[in-house]
Amino acid sequence: MMSTASDTAAERYARGWAKLREVDGEAGEQVINSLCDISPDLSRYLIEYCFGDIYARGKLDLKTTELVVVAALAAMGTAEPQLRVHLHGALNTGNSRQEVVEALLQVAVFAGFPAALKGIVAAREVFAARDEQGKPDAPLAPAAAAPAGTRPVRGEEALERLKAGQLRHLHAEYDAIAPDVVGFIVDFCFGDVLSRPALLPPLRQLLTVGMVTAKGGLTAELEFHIRAALHLGCLPEAILEIMLLMTVYAGFPAALNGIAIAKKVLAEPTGGPAGSGQ
Amino acid sequence: MMSTASDTAAERYARGWAKLREVDGEAGEQVINSLCDISPDLSRYLIEYCFGDIYARGKLDLKTTELVVVAALAAMGTAEPQLRVHLHGALNTGNSRQEVVEALLQVAVFAGFPAALKGIVAAREVFAARDEQGKPDAPLAPAAAAPAGTRPVRGEEALERLKAGQLRHLHAEYDAIAPDVVGFIVDFCFGDVLSRPALLPPLRQLLTVGMVTAKGGLTAELEFHIRAALHLGCLPEAILEIMLLMTVYAGFPAALNGIAIAKKVLAEPTGGPAGSGQ
Amino acid sequence: MMSTASDTAAERYARGWAKLREVDGEAGEQVINSLCDISPDLSRYLIEYCFGDIYARGKLDLKTTELVVVAALAAMGTAEPQLRVHLHGALNTGNSRQEVVEALLQVAVFAGFPAALKGIVAAREVFAARDEQGKPDAPLAPAAAAPAGTRPVRGEEALERLKAGQLRHLHAEYDAIAPDVVGFIVDFCFGDVLSRPALLPPLRQLLTVGMVTAKGGLTAELEFHIRAALHLGCLPEAILEIMLLMTVYAGFPAALNGIAIAKKVLAEPTGGPAGSGQ
Repeated sequence: MMSTASDTAAERYARGWAKLREVDGEAGEQVINSLCDISPDLSRYLIEYCFGDIYARGKLDLKTTELVVVAALAAMGTAEPQLRVHLHGALNTGNSRQEVVEALLQVAVFAGFPAALKGIVAAREVFAARDEQGKPDAPLAPAAAAPAGTRPVRGEEALERLKAGQLRHLHAEYDAIAPDVVGFIVDFCFGDVLSRPALLPPLRQLLTVGMVTAKGGLTAELEFHIRAALHLGCLPEAILEIMLLMTVYAGFPAALNGIAIAKKVLAEPTGGPAGSGQ
Repeated sequence: MMSTASDTAAERYARGWAKLREVDGEAGEQVINSLCDISPDLSRYLIEYCFGDIYARGKLDLKTTELVVVAALAAMGTAEPQLRVHLHGALNTGNSRQEVVEALLQVAVFAGFPAALKGIVAAREVFAARDEQGKPDAPLAPAAAAPAGTRPVRGEEALERLKAGQLRHLHAEYDAIAPDVVGFIVDFCFGDVLSRPALLPPLRQLLTVGMVTAKGGLTAELEFHIRAALHLGCLPEAILEIMLLMTVYAGFPAALNGIAIAKKVLAEPTGGPAGSGQ
Repeated sequence: MMSTASDTAAERYARGWAKLREVDGEAGEQVINSLCDISPDLSRYLIEYCFGDIYARGKLDLKTTELVVVAALAAMGTAEPQLRVHLHGALNTGNSRQEVVEALLQVAVFAGFPAALKGIVAAREVFAARDEQGKPDAPLAPAAAAPAGTRPVRGEEALERLKAGQLRHLHAEYDAIAPDVVGFIVDFCFGDVLSRPALLPPLRQLLTVGMVTAKGGLTAELEFHIRAALHLGCLPEAILEIMLLMTVYAGFPAALNGIAIAKKVLAEPTGGPAGSGQ
């Protein structure tokens, strides 16, 4: 299924169209059809490049791919129609509604509450449309069981999992200037959100890498989160697939910036110097 | 009213709910209610963290807080429903309609005219809704009195107020490459907009710090504007409260980036080296 | 037509109003009229500064100016009403519908497919409105002739045109970490999109400079693309006019950041050191 330089346009198109149908279903087809009068070439690039080249690589499973795309589009906050298409895509590729909502909760930490709220509003519309269509999505969980431990305890554990010694580092970095901020990072970001059991830590870290890459401009943060993803056992290949995915959703400059940062982190000796970001 | 680590969830929730009602009124309640079927946890975090932890700190008065939020959301340009909620919030907490419009004018300088225009369109809708509800807002000012002095004179005064010698610095920086740009900065940014008497210079500078932090990625600019805010007499605490506020509206990476820049500026000896940004 | 410090407000207003009518026609007038009840001053700044000062400079022809504005607004993704106004503006100033669509295709490369799709959707609405009004735009081209050469050949030529040796540089930079990315850059970015004959390479490069400046935060990328624009024969003056234009559309911090980067590039000896971005 891998694209190679010798693929004909017809092969890329056929492969892309099949992949588009698999991921986005009718919502994707509608996007394509809506383009034929005004820009058939954009529709062709969408099929050939986005789906025939990138999605068809098959190096990151579609379920993870689509959850990363949902998080990144919600974090960018500029692409509501595409967010809706990929909310369908995330559910079509095996994510439960609960997993989708969890990814959108995580957006609140990395792109703010307005971005998360917009994502949740779009998700509610998509869920309602799918109810009408009788799509058999794995449902929202019933009231979640109370999570283990207190917020600070859960939070410190989740933070230290990203990088041993990070709590001490954050206190040293911020306490003199903004004494409460480390408490908010530990209790809210990690104790409330990032320790929620519905998504595994390595998957959450891939969502974070996607969001921070897509937003662009936050170099130190991205560096820290790529390092943390590797520390949690994410494969370098998965991180680089996310960068390729971001060529589609955020454009080549933001994606190539992400690749340059990944290259720097991957060149570090394992157990190398600590990052300074959050 | 300060949050502490030992607060129970119930205390944070009660405190947050009261604060949300105080700031956003019915518009805020509607947001909360709309979340209960799809993500009760997001609604809980919104109440507990955003309002129970951050807004309840009480270190920056609510009136200023909400005007900063309006400016930052308008500058981001990605959160219209939240912008409308906080336009209500700004008026609910004692800002006049004129002050709200002034903050949106300032958005034109720091995030461009399209962002300011979108903000003004939202404000008109909110004003009309409040007229129907019979809310007694302090009105738009009648035709403003002609401001004192010519544009270049007003502009130079307002610019030099941010930093003595800045006019000379800008000429040295830009004249060889873009000879007209200093004129536009002085005449339009400072002579037209930032010298308008309806908002005091330190308040304007807090709005600017909020906007540039929320947009992310403009390090040199943010550094200059934090330094200028301190020079105008803004307290370091106020600047740091704005950074905490931006954890809510723009996410932790952008806010922590802002705190890192504030830390650098605050470590400078007073009267230290001049910034190079505008 | 140049603005000078001694211009009276009345002169700037009259000059700006004429320019606004020339560029945006009725769509622009509607924006102005819609502001008179809520912020007559914003409407005045729009006329005096944006059109009376910046557009009236006349150093970059209006046709190019408006195509750059369309690309930048679509890339930002936050200003749909203004994008529609300037889609009209681009057509009013002599761009064909095909040229407008080509500019939006290029947005896919630099800001991602969702941004390009939003732009195309807006363009379709604007084209339909103009059909109803009977505007005689130069039409969309009929099915484009098959472009010359294969994708990799076209792509390599287009890439090397920006900077001799860049293909080798990209392979050295990326092959060890993300072996397929150079292929995607060459085949998709350059072979599919940037080599399309409907817009000349120097014009495409001005669009890119506008988009990357407007998005902000991507310093290495902007540096590369300014250098490439000069290499393609774009005048330094044209690049700086685009930065001034971005004061209007993306705000002064992003524009001044762009000017600082342009200053650095222009200070390099010709044939100086190679950039590292794409």
